[in-house]
Amino acid sequence: MSYQHVIKTRYSETAQDGIIHHSSFIVYLEIARIEYFKTIGCDINEIEKEGNISPVVDLSIRYLKPLKSLEEIAVKVVSKNVSRVRFQLEYEISRGSDIVATAISTHCFLNSNFQPIAIPEKFKLK
Amino acid sequence: MSYQHVIKTRYSETAQDGIIHHSSFIVYLEIARIEYFKTIGCDINEIEKEGNISPVVDLSIRYLKPLKSLEEIAVKVVSKNVSRVRFQLEYEISRGSDIVATAISTHCFLNSNFQPIAIPEKFKLK
Amino acid sequence: MSYQHVIKTRYSETAQDGIIHHSSFIVYLEIARIEYFKTIGCDINEIEKEGNISPVVDLSIRYLKPLKSLEEIAVKVVSKNVSRVRFQLEYEISRGSDIVATAISTHCFLNSNFQPIAIPEKFKLK
Amino acid sequence: MSYQHVIKTRYSETAQDGIIHHSSFIVYLEIARIEYFKTIGCDINEIEKEGNISPVVDLSIRYLKPLKSLEEIAVKVVSKNVSRVRFQLEYEISRGSDIVATAISTHCFLNSNFQPIAIPEKFKLK
Repeated sequence: MSYQHVIKTRYSETAQDGIIHHSSFIVYLEIARIEYFKTIGCDINEIEKEGNISPVVDLSIRYLKPLKSLEEIAVKVVSKNVSRVRFQLEYEISRGSDIVATAISTHCFLNSNFQPIAIPEKFKLK
Repeated sequence: MSYQHVIKTRYSETAQDGIIHHSSFIVYLEIARIEYFKTIGCDINEIEKEGNISPVVDLSIRYLKPLKSLEEIAVKVVSKNVSRVRFQLEYEISRGSDIVATAISTHCFLNSNFQPIAIPEKFKLK
Repeated sequence: MSYQHVIKTRYSETAQDGIIHHSSFIVYLEIARIEYFKTIGCDINEIEKEGNISPVVDLSIRYLKPLKSLEEIAVKVVSKNVSRVRFQLEYEISRGSDIVATAISTHCFLNSNFQPIAIPEKFKLK
Repeated sequence: MSYQHVIKTRYSETAQDGIIHHSSFIVYLEIARIEYFKTIGCDINEIEKEGNISPVVDLSIRYLKPLKSLEEIAVKVVSKNVSRVRFQLEYEISRGSDIVATAISTHCFLNSNFQPIAIPEKFKLK
């Protein structure tokens, strides 16, 4: 499954070098990921109300082109591997036809004692 | 009572105009406020573990001079008025002998239903 | 003149108390302000390319209701006083029919030596 | 060469799941990296004043343990490979004897036209 979310870069996300700070890309990935979760019936606020959290286990990102403020970007999220306790997502951030970054992240689900719990079945539908 | 906390401005807190973004000053105030709280025996993490929160009710800030990245600033916090359900703090952010911003904030304490609760006695010691 | 901009609150803008951090409201004001600027023919990126910046001189905000993550809010910006070297904006942040915050900010324009310059005529049209 | 920098996590860096947001770790890496740069005679503000920037080319991070607000962490930076136009750094974020994250980042230097320039000799000293 895949999902695409459009975001406009913010002035406050730039730094003094005139481009969007690299840490903001990490937030863009999360915004798209949470919207993607919703499309498969997984509301992050609901998950947390039940006492579970879904932290990032690892994350890799390649920055291909600089982004400026007030640019419109599309973040594409693709579900990759899903095991019993982990799932992996791939991302492509693009501006028009330019790919500006690619990324991959791994996630798990933890209960309120920070113990791993099984990945919801919804994530296994491709 | 008053308290002073030293902070170094971060590269990521600048924006494309080359100066520290004005929203970061709000974070500086909070950092100093939380450290001040600790000196009067009020640990914000403990307060929240008990199910209460202490939100900002209002905040005013005057920006007097621009700050650059990697500058050392001192944030002075002074306790002002304390009523039954609100307390007020005044701040001065300085870089060396330069005052770069002044601010005032009002706070309350809420329980987990967002209902106001009495300000802890500790805040009434001046 | 007035302008309204819709924003969705982000997960990353919350803090451990479960609500949107008060510093993020300051960013919401800026996002709406920059979009408002555009509607009166003032592109912030263009202003800065010409070597000028438009910093916040002062800012007051009243927080009326807590915001949660992934809520849709509307930020209304109204132009108030404009003098030769300063202009003032008023804001109302609402969620549905609830006003969650009101704010007022004062701004100036500075050249690259941080000297005040005249407010562009565009800001004087009401 | 290696360098270690101590940081205290901030309240505003947490999210509603009660732990430090994963994007803040990226900022911690940068803070330590910039301090490390200084120790080898490379002031990021000076580099940028000369019209060059040093963006992140890629970044990988493994999150091993959650961090809470107001915790003291140490970020260790180790210089790894340096080629003509790129250099790589490795990081370890620890809290006491616990390693909470490890990371690796690649960087380049670009001139004001976003063209790669040679890595300064200072980076080649190990």
